[in-house]
Amino acid sequence: MIKFSLHPQLAESTLDLGPLPLSEARINNDSRFPWIILIPRGKGLVGLHDLGTGDLQVMMLEIRDMSRLLVEAYSPDRINVGALGNIVPQLHVHVIARFETDPVWPNPVWGAGSPVPYDEESPELGKIRDAFKNYTSV
Amino acid sequence: MIKFSLHPQLAESTLDLGPLPLSEARINNDSRFPWIILIPRGKGLVGLHDLGTGDLQVMMLEIRDMSRLLVEAYSPDRINVGALGNIVPQLHVHVIARFETDPVWPNPVWGAGSPVPYDEESPELGKIRDAFKNYTSV
Repeated sequence: MIKFSLHPQLAESTLDLGPLPLSEARINNDSRFPWIILIPRGKGLVGLHDLGTGDLQVMMLEIRDMSRLLVEAYSPDRINVGALGNIVPQLHVHVIARFETDPVWPNPVWGAGSPVPYDEESPELGKIRDAFKNYTSV
Repeated sequence: MIKFSLHPQLAESTLDLGPLPLSEARINNDSRFPWIILIPRGKGLVGLHDLGTGDLQVMMLEIRDMSRLLVEAYSPDRINVGALGNIVPQLHVHVIARFETDPVWPNPVWGAGSPVPYDEESPELGKIRDAFKNYTSV
């Protein structure tokens, strides 16, 4: 079994959510937005185009599933999907529920303001974890 | 034949590149970055998760191909991929070549500064169109 290795900056700024077939799903530790980050468990991946065709297809389905999960749980105005990697080079894909009432709408969330970490006992954290558990158990 | 309908704001801010199997490829009219926008030719699409499974797979391959095209033509430091739609609701996917020397690195490009339109005769415009022609003819 290959130990999955998470870039220290990702480890520090995210919270555990759970494994998907290709990716590790994590919660971005910023309570301003329901925000999932998918990190494919492969070595040396930087861009989406580094994935082989099969993995790329799975990646897209995982992005779709996490988008749907957020839509069902939060009824957001928009889902933002992004793979940037300008700061953390390890391939990771953001899936974010956006609201016209959120603090940085309509700007992108990356680098906008300061993250507001979740309280560990926060019901918001429980909500996203429950949505994930229920979604993947279907 | 269904006429493909482009949101007026996308039509205004982009230049023709060419058709792909699922999407219309266009050049974002901002010479600060080599920047391709893919617009799937479907009705009422807003998020990536609105695509059916087959179209989603094709979309991912088109994103990969445009990423590779930009990598081959420009040797960028990073490819940024994003589907936001906070301002223009019609589904469109950004594929952008980023450089550590570009004017907004490492921030995201959306909403950062003002676009610098291409000169119609600019060789940069020719370069991206040539790369597209050569890539899709393989």
